[in-house]
Amino acid sequence: METGGTKVVCAIGTGPGDVRARVRIPTGEPSATLREAIAFFRQHTSPVAAVGIASFGPVDLDPRSPTFGFITTTPKPGWAHTDVAGPFRAALGVPVAFDTDVNGAALAEHMWGAARASDPIVYVTVGTGIGGGGVVHGRLLHGLLHPEMGHLRIPHDRAADPFPGVCPYHGDCLDGLASGRALAERWGAPAEALPPGHRAWDLEAEYLALGLVSVIGVLSPRRIVIGGGVLQHGALLPRIRRRVVALLAGYIAVRQVMADVDTYIVPPALGGDAGVLGALALAHTALATRRSEASGAE
Amino acid sequence: METGGTKVVCAIGTGPGDVRARVRIPTGEPSATLREAIAFFRQHTSPVAAVGIASFGPVDLDPRSPTFGFITTTPKPGWAHTDVAGPFRAALGVPVAFDTDVNGAALAEHMWGAARASDPIVYVTVGTGIGGGGVVHGRLLHGLLHPEMGHLRIPHDRAADPFPGVCPYHGDCLDGLASGRALAERWGAPAEALPPGHRAWDLEAEYLALGLVSVIGVLSPRRIVIGGGVLQHGALLPRIRRRVVALLAGYIAVRQVMADVDTYIVPPALGGDAGVLGALALAHTALATRRSEASGAE
Repeated sequence: METGGTKVVCAIGTGPGDVRARVRIPTGEPSATLREAIAFFRQHTSPVAAVGIASFGPVDLDPRSPTFGFITTTPKPGWAHTDVAGPFRAALGVPVAFDTDVNGAALAEHMWGAARASDPIVYVTVGTGIGGGGVVHGRLLHGLLHPEMGHLRIPHDRAADPFPGVCPYHGDCLDGLASGRALAERWGAPAEALPPGHRAWDLEAEYLALGLVSVIGVLSPRRIVIGGGVLQHGALLPRIRRRVVALLAGYIAVRQVMADVDTYIVPPALGGDAGVLGALALAHTALATRRSEASGAE
Repeated sequence: METGGTKVVCAIGTGPGDVRARVRIPTGEPSATLREAIAFFRQHTSPVAAVGIASFGPVDLDPRSPTFGFITTTPKPGWAHTDVAGPFRAALGVPVAFDTDVNGAALAEHMWGAARASDPIVYVTVGTGIGGGGVVHGRLLHGLLHPEMGHLRIPHDRAADPFPGVCPYHGDCLDGLASGRALAERWGAPAEALPPGHRAWDLEAEYLALGLVSVIGVLSPRRIVIGGGVLQHGALLPRIRRRVVALLAGYIAVRQVMADVDTYIVPPALGGDAGVLGALALAHTALATRRSEASGAE
């Protein structure tokens, strides 16, 4: 189940090419919406083995927390402090995995998409905000909070670019300088309205490259997948690649980055299905966790 | 075996409190030095079950590389392109783990020290240079290269601090602004000669805090261990903690960071034994890998 602010998409299957049933439910009042979703899974001819929930946030992902599996402080009416995972566990009696939509997409790209067979990997999405997720040693990275790759402090030359940034916490962090929100406020027009020759794109590439250089320095991913609405602008990705190589300045002199940057920093492969495939990928992890617990392994 | 530029320390044991034998060999010509180390392990009354090598670098850590287990481009005379792990494997017939000294120390702090029972964790050392390692899902983080936490691009206000940095690759990256080398060149005196009231320390805390904020944004560690020669200056760690909390500015509003930062960012616990305990920790991973391969698990 992909839980979005306007719609909830439920699908049954095992992965891309094997989605056997799908339903789209408008996101209404939580208990009715979740009841309808549960009914969809129940009425399917063959019982589901596990459920994965890829949810809009913020969410509580700490398994030791009493509100694990809850949507927490969302402004979405009625959804604040809603237990999303619990009703599925109770009603269906199967393992339930619960994570952010971004982490779901990261895992799906790792299992089936542009980051297949690479580990560790990072997935970054640049839309209204900037978010991201990582897969390390085959599993999603969960730390103190889920890492989010968005609010990184990066160099900002205020003489060359006096824009103060839009982040309510940090002003000119990566999210404050390079999110879709920042583009719209800085240039007075949304990203999709900025023409290819606009100087917005060089600046955008520079900031996103600086963010990726931090990601590379800390996590050393074997592949970076970068997508989201702002990346729909075709000239952006090649510029980001060029600037990452230039900013690393030969320090990380491995072929994958220096010569093969086009296969190192790549667009997502799952497109519009990333959300629901993310949920299916999470369902697989719920099954794997159940199996390893049963066999007594870690 | 801890392989340093001036000495090689070999020890036999299982961990802190159980080091049963130890020898210190001056780092001479490679083949004679390694032969002497191998002889030490061979002559011990009970055979060793595995060997861990925590080595000065740069080293080749890619298991798919033909020079895996080699020291690569070191300026140390005679040691460039030396196969370090191979002779131990051949002579002792036991599993051999090979990694950087920094990764060894990170793993030892995770197994026995200041980052015990936390996961993921990051270990950062600020000495002549800045380096680091991470443990995620119980295992050392190895990516495209080992991540190194040193050459992060951070905000640098050249109006307030015109020092251009000492990094030969990037100028004013974290390593270029805040390493022991940078301190010495910037102030004309080594870190240990700078008095507690010197304004060097506020600047140093600011840059190191900016680096840790990147680490938190990308990896979201549950604990950060920070040590090394520069951190011997007692007033530095409390200032780093204060600046990390201030720079996060409430965005990561979890108790561990905001209220308990003194137990979130901590000094190493293993002190002078970190090197050799790092090697012992690596030996444990060699054994665990052998066991999981034998049982057919991942």
